[in-house]
Amino acid sequence: MDERAALALLDRELDPVGDDAAVVDDLVVTTDMLHERTDFPPGTTRYTAGWRAVGASLSDVAAMGAEATAAVAAYAAPEFDPEELLAFVRGASDVCERVGAEYVGGDLDGHEEFTVATTAFGRARDPLFRSGARAGDIVCVTGTLGRSAAALTLFERAAEDETPPAEADRALERANELFRFVPRIDAGLALASRATAAMDSSDGLARSLHQLGEASGCGFAIDSEAIPVDDALDELTTGEGGARERATTFGEDFELVATVPDDALADARAATDVPLTPIGSVVDPEDGITIDGRDLEDRGYTHG
Amino acid sequence: MDERAALALLDRELDPVGDDAAVVDDLVVTTDMLHERTDFPPGTTRYTAGWRAVGASLSDVAAMGAEATAAVAAYAAPEFDPEELLAFVRGASDVCERVGAEYVGGDLDGHEEFTVATTAFGRARDPLFRSGARAGDIVCVTGTLGRSAAALTLFERAAEDETPPAEADRALERANELFRFVPRIDAGLALASRATAAMDSSDGLARSLHQLGEASGCGFAIDSEAIPVDDALDELTTGEGGARERATTFGEDFELVATVPDDALADARAATDVPLTPIGSVVDPEDGITIDGRDLEDRGYTHG
Repeated sequence: MDERAALALLDRELDPVGDDAAVVDDLVVTTDMLHERTDFPPGTTRYTAGWRAVGASLSDVAAMGAEATAAVAAYAAPEFDPEELLAFVRGASDVCERVGAEYVGGDLDGHEEFTVATTAFGRARDPLFRSGARAGDIVCVTGTLGRSAAALTLFERAAEDETPPAEADRALERANELFRFVPRIDAGLALASRATAAMDSSDGLARSLHQLGEASGCGFAIDSEAIPVDDALDELTTGEGGARERATTFGEDFELVATVPDDALADARAATDVPLTPIGSVVDPEDGITIDGRDLEDRGYTHG
Repeated sequence: MDERAALALLDRELDPVGDDAAVVDDLVVTTDMLHERTDFPPGTTRYTAGWRAVGASLSDVAAMGAEATAAVAAYAAPEFDPEELLAFVRGASDVCERVGAEYVGGDLDGHEEFTVATTAFGRARDPLFRSGARAGDIVCVTGTLGRSAAALTLFERAAEDETPPAEADRALERANELFRFVPRIDAGLALASRATAAMDSSDGLARSLHQLGEASGCGFAIDSEAIPVDDALDELTTGEGGARERATTFGEDFELVATVPDDALADARAATDVPLTPIGSVVDPEDGITIDGRDLEDRGYTHG
């Protein structure tokens, strides 16, 4: 491979507007590495870690409008506790089962920090990309935003010295539940033939819109009141506007952000049980990316 | 998933006689995690690391008798030096190109230790498994054994204080060359319809034979003189029998160990440019696993 080809490849590696997964023939492939320090707060069970790590890769498959076929995981830890490993494999298998994929195992590796690398595969006849949004399309998000922000608040609360043990246990249980999201394969399939562009919201809504805008060459006009803020985040965040702000920028939520032509929206919503909420519209690039008429900054979660 | 299914899955995760890759329909999938401390000795270039890490997964695809389709890598390091990253991507791309696969990028992650997780996939109409060897079959290995053992000797020599700088540079260059193996996709395809069982030799010949023996329910009678010891290892190892012993147990070589019916061997050898060397034969399980008539112990490389 010559320098230019290598640079182009590297560009794709580093390019924040690259798609969520690579496409080889009709096969969609994506890989992620997560590790304890940045991705699994103290109190995350290994079951949740297995579910969430494999789910993150399945979410990228969903963002491509693909069926999920299978996933593998490489599990690295300082020691292999059979119960922890079993819990991890169960979480990984259960999230696969929820979206009709098969968990087909992986690799074990000794490592100082608990680290998981996951790869998921899918098939797409008609893959969805980040480019393709056109002025006039409706911007939608699946499910709710802010689950992970709410989970983080609960993990932190559980870790505080002044939290009574019983309350800490409840907080951890709920945080783990919130951390185990269902990858939006079903919604992705409903959007595949109908949306013009899509990606997942793992970097936060604000950053996702900037990435879609860059890939599609468009702007967005978002209505903050329309953003489906998760009830748990609303309940856990005090102060006016706080929950909405966190739901917009926090990220790590693995919902889909998609642009859909106005006349295809009803069909898309009818084709999936997953709530598909319109939050604004695609505008010309010179109109920028705005929320309630003000500039929406490109900030959000930066993956560690 | 119930406990029994989870345990069966976990068994597959941990089972040393599990196959080199998982098979989902006609898709062959395999994942590996490598890291600096155990897999990349000081002096390993990032080009070599990219080649070798992706090559290790492609070797598992080869062991299944599959065509190689594509590979991805998650690259984790404390910082992202563009030159190092570019070199890594080039190595990863070049090894893919050598076997007709496509390198389709991956993920970047901040991590204290340089760590790489690779996933390769391929297609197999008629996958080869570790089970299937029958008494009377010929045991063959591709290429030569001992390349990685020789490379390690050279990496160590380069790191010694008394080694003159020019000699250290030459040692490192040669060590890196030896570390960059060609995954045996071509030989795997030649063996696919002809061999009865196969796996790669990454845990060393001795351990591979024990794993094949366990999966197939057979023994082996190996002739040590027939083992194709790599010239570099012969040259670098002093002391009688030393090179042969290291070639048998050291591992990390990524050759294929296959069992082929006597009447299919000539065809298999004619179907690939890769040398396919007979080193012994498959025997009944009660005859055990022997080399020159003595028990061949189950020892070799244990992946860190």
